[in-house]
Amino acid sequence: MEKRKIKIVDTTLRDGSHAVSHSFTVEQATAIAGGLDKVGVSLIELSHGDGIAGSSINYGMSKVPEMELLRAASKVVKNAKLTVLLLPGIGTIEDLQQAKDNGAQAVRVATHVTEADIAIQHIKYAKSIGMMAVGFLMMSHMASPEKIVEQAKIFVDCGADYINLADSAGHMVPDDVRARISALKNSIEIPIGFHSHNNLGLSVANSIAAVEEGASYVDVTCRGLGAGAGNTQNEVLCAVLDRLGYDTGVDLYGIMDVAEEIVEPIMQRPQIVNTASLMLGYAGVYSSFLLHTYRAAEKFHLNPRDILVELGRRGMVGGQEDMIIDVAFELSQQKTR
Amino acid sequence: MEKRKIKIVDTTLRDGSHAVSHSFTVEQATAIAGGLDKVGVSLIELSHGDGIAGSSINYGMSKVPEMELLRAASKVVKNAKLTVLLLPGIGTIEDLQQAKDNGAQAVRVATHVTEADIAIQHIKYAKSIGMMAVGFLMMSHMASPEKIVEQAKIFVDCGADYINLADSAGHMVPDDVRARISALKNSIEIPIGFHSHNNLGLSVANSIAAVEEGASYVDVTCRGLGAGAGNTQNEVLCAVLDRLGYDTGVDLYGIMDVAEEIVEPIMQRPQIVNTASLMLGYAGVYSSFLLHTYRAAEKFHLNPRDILVELGRRGMVGGQEDMIIDVAFELSQQKTR
Repeated sequence: MEKRKIKIVDTTLRDGSHAVSHSFTVEQATAIAGGLDKVGVSLIELSHGDGIAGSSINYGMSKVPEMELLRAASKVVKNAKLTVLLLPGIGTIEDLQQAKDNGAQAVRVATHVTEADIAIQHIKYAKSIGMMAVGFLMMSHMASPEKIVEQAKIFVDCGADYINLADSAGHMVPDDVRARISALKNSIEIPIGFHSHNNLGLSVANSIAAVEEGASYVDVTCRGLGAGAGNTQNEVLCAVLDRLGYDTGVDLYGIMDVAEEIVEPIMQRPQIVNTASLMLGYAGVYSSFLLHTYRAAEKFHLNPRDILVELGRRGMVGGQEDMIIDVAFELSQQKTR
Repeated sequence: MEKRKIKIVDTTLRDGSHAVSHSFTVEQATAIAGGLDKVGVSLIELSHGDGIAGSSINYGMSKVPEMELLRAASKVVKNAKLTVLLLPGIGTIEDLQQAKDNGAQAVRVATHVTEADIAIQHIKYAKSIGMMAVGFLMMSHMASPEKIVEQAKIFVDCGADYINLADSAGHMVPDDVRARISALKNSIEIPIGFHSHNNLGLSVANSIAAVEEGASYVDVTCRGLGAGAGNTQNEVLCAVLDRLGYDTGVDLYGIMDVAEEIVEPIMQRPQIVNTASLMLGYAGVYSSFLLHTYRAAEKFHLNPRDILVELGRRGMVGGQEDMIIDVAFELSQQKTR
């Protein structure tokens, strides 16, 4: 029997950018993109960690403008599709055109899991200029399978090439993934991808669960480089998919070498699950909540972990950081009652 | 509904000992054992990494004799059972008696998955002196569920309190675990435990699979400290089990603090999946093969990874390190043919 083909989407140069404070140099980006291309990765994502035009005081400045990195990477990427991430509200259609002009062939347009509609214009524009376009739903643990299907259909209707589901907080267990991916598989015709974080130590298992339910694209980074506990480790997932009889098209020893010889030397810290990242996964909240939470905890003499759990319970989303202080105040009142 | 109870078996002071070159001091062992006891761990295993009497030129010398560490730990362990590991052939019944005299309340007698019979005398002796005794099957990916049941019954017949199945090479995927644990669950009456390594990034998922199939003891270490890619990370597994509605009896924030404040500062390197540990898991071979393999690869101008895969294919077991050179020779002959 022919092996089922799984496309490996490496986002070391995008999600991994968070873990090196957006400090990739032209030399590093070229080495990584070139290495990934050579070993058979399907898509290579390169952008500021928060997507194109993310470089800012608020989200962290890129050391080298991403357009320059893209241009350099485009010279060495021969077989893979060079891809950018775009978060509507941060990146614009103008930025997307610029990314294409600098060599990007695909864009993934990412929105909160319930807000696919704000991505319609970007996806339509990408398709109109001949780019591959992917609809990307973040924080998907916060929505039911039914809600996710509804949102995915918005992407399908505007012409997306595939739907990528993201467990942005690393909160899901394999059964959570199975429920969501199988619902999509049963409802939409275009391919499905999955993006995982390792906050609960489950990113490889969740990715395998997604593949088993029908996902055909999987997001990874070399050595798991990424925000918080990091992403699914590329070389590890490729080894497991190989063991399980899938065809990733990736040369296994080759990707191990890219991770160990090119990416690991660049890393600023090992990608481990510490208390902070574990709590983000356990509570199911954005990593951007962490700093605000620690500040609020100090102010109100609370355990920051109790605040994170409460934020998760209330389903707080990115952009609501201001409300953390209110939640902390309420918790402190309950405590003194 | 009452939550199902899962007993957490922390082996930071035994399997974790490999990852600090058996250098635990009395102060460190006391701090770790005391911390684990306080937060509600059920069993605390403390021995040389290769079990009692493992300290030797061959397996690595312990900085502090394990009997001294045991004695110190026994003074702070109030609720958990202080446990030792014993590998017949390395440790003896005399060593076991000495461990009991120094405070050990339980022993886990570990053999290769097909050699349970060499543990009978040790388990019977342990029971005769009032210790808890556990039958421990290593490298269990190398045996079928049926074979494992047969071996487990040897332990049951000699009075073992529970059976612990170990994925010593970190080679299994969740379905491998499910097949083995469910076979045991259907065939024996005593409790079942599971011991995992993270070489394929699956230790948390495999432990969850074991629990779902009926295992009630799970081996872990703080921060995953252990040989190769390390063990299942205690604080992460406790968080996931809590999310899934199991009762570990472990204070979640407490175990996070033990890992971050007591264990992490002692670690000599972060517990990551690098090429070496990934290859051990992928090939399914003992970590003791690694050094011999690299030497043989150099001698015969081979990729060490090809040798490891071949060793796994042939089902080579610990003690057969001498044959690695023969395998390398054969591979080199094939290459030049």
